[in-house]
Amino acid sequence: MKFNEKLEKIVNKNNSLLCVGLDIDQEKMPKFLFDSSKTPYLDFNKSIIDATKDLVCAYKINMAFYEVFGKEGFDLLEKTIAYIPKNIVVILDGKRNDIGNTAKKYAQSLFETFNADAVTVNPYLGIDGVKPFLEYKDKCSFILCRTSNTSARDFQDLESNKIPLYEIVANKIKDWNSYGNCGAVVGATYPDELQKIRALLGDEIPILIPGIGAQGGDVEKTVKYGTNKDGKMAIIVSGRSIIYAGNDKNFAEKSREAAKNLRSKINKYR
Amino acid sequence: MKFNEKLEKIVNKNNSLLCVGLDIDQEKMPKFLFDSSKTPYLDFNKSIIDATKDLVCAYKINMAFYEVFGKEGFDLLEKTIAYIPKNIVVILDGKRNDIGNTAKKYAQSLFETFNADAVTVNPYLGIDGVKPFLEYKDKCSFILCRTSNTSARDFQDLESNKIPLYEIVANKIKDWNSYGNCGAVVGATYPDELQKIRALLGDEIPILIPGIGAQGGDVEKTVKYGTNKDGKMAIIVSGRSIIYAGNDKNFAEKSREAAKNLRSKINKYR
Repeated sequence: MKFNEKLEKIVNKNNSLLCVGLDIDQEKMPKFLFDSSKTPYLDFNKSIIDATKDLVCAYKINMAFYEVFGKEGFDLLEKTIAYIPKNIVVILDGKRNDIGNTAKKYAQSLFETFNADAVTVNPYLGIDGVKPFLEYKDKCSFILCRTSNTSARDFQDLESNKIPLYEIVANKIKDWNSYGNCGAVVGATYPDELQKIRALLGDEIPILIPGIGAQGGDVEKTVKYGTNKDGKMAIIVSGRSIIYAGNDKNFAEKSREAAKNLRSKINKYR
Repeated sequence: MKFNEKLEKIVNKNNSLLCVGLDIDQEKMPKFLFDSSKTPYLDFNKSIIDATKDLVCAYKINMAFYEVFGKEGFDLLEKTIAYIPKNIVVILDGKRNDIGNTAKKYAQSLFETFNADAVTVNPYLGIDGVKPFLEYKDKCSFILCRTSNTSARDFQDLESNKIPLYEIVANKIKDWNSYGNCGAVVGATYPDELQKIRALLGDEIPILIPGIGAQGGDVEKTVKYGTNKDGKMAIIVSGRSIIYAGNDKNFAEKSREAAKNLRSKINKYR
């Protein structure tokens, strides 16, 4: 099944554009887990997944939070992905980028070793760094276009012939989409840019949108500007504000509540 | 010890600017290793390190070739790094990039979990993505500036106020170098750009230079344009042409020969 089809199915089934970020962090996780369990991180992820799996279209896993544990982290990553129901989209957020044979190894790592449905890729190296990912035609490669952080402006706003770099990247994403397996990453913290990029990309290319919640992106604008004409093809990420909604024994329940509220809020504007 | 000092010491001791890339690849490795050993990759790396450790200033490890094996790969990565003599520079080439707390986790992963002396970082996200790496003041962060591949031109050549992006990045690297722990990655395949970037960076900033050997960069130009006034501060990478110089029982010997020849060739032009 093509990625966009898998996405459409789960968006319809769970009536949701919400993607929960499983970014584990000992400092923010419920303390009791570390006293009571030998596998606190895996228990945490499983509880969050159980509590939210009927409310989301996707889970996004940022690899940094796992590789920091070395080999144990990759074990945890494998087990977490294996636990996610097969009909839900798994996005491995690694922002990988390299050339030729090396990029091929990264693509193989994320799509085969870890079995992700989608990945994030940094475009600085041009098409050489992206192509090996695009060879996986049933997967999706979300190219960083306009990132959600303040210093995104450092290089992404630089204008060449009056067109800022992030727009040039968006146009390339359209070019690179011949297999229908490209997406864009655009931060919710830049709603005007999000609107412009959606217009450039048309209705068929999914946009992965981090930056609401802790980073301050506005939900209404994110939905209105990020979705396509059918109110779809936007994957709206929230991490901390959902998975760390509670930090007591009832943390999973709290995360469910937070996910439910955010899903409703998103759907209100679709 | 600051990174630049560690680099200077080993460059002097081994009279070498050569960095060997330990990019393991079953298809290119000696077949007999896979029949005779239960740990062929680690054996291979150890043999290459033993055969070249008095001829190099650094080893560069591209993480893609390891993470493709999942948790086993990270185990191998840890063991390989542990085997490298402490006075030789270890560069973890991951081209990582992210923001805030996430970038911090990557920095922690590479510098602490894996104990690298230096890393490569992709600049597309601006200073937010670089700063957490720069907090490790005794380490070095090599920022991708001009990559060695053909499609480096896709975005890195875009001109803003007549200055191409890679030059704008080079200028930022100079700005970001207040702790003296920034470096640049510039491909040997672009000698004119290498010369320009060395002039921009001055004599104190190391340049990591991939692209000679299999990718076709010229050694003479690489050395002349990449080194500083003292014929130093350039780390010249060769991977495949050294570690796969032989593929029989004598592969390590062959790699030693190839490394020796390349070191001499580099030194001829210093």
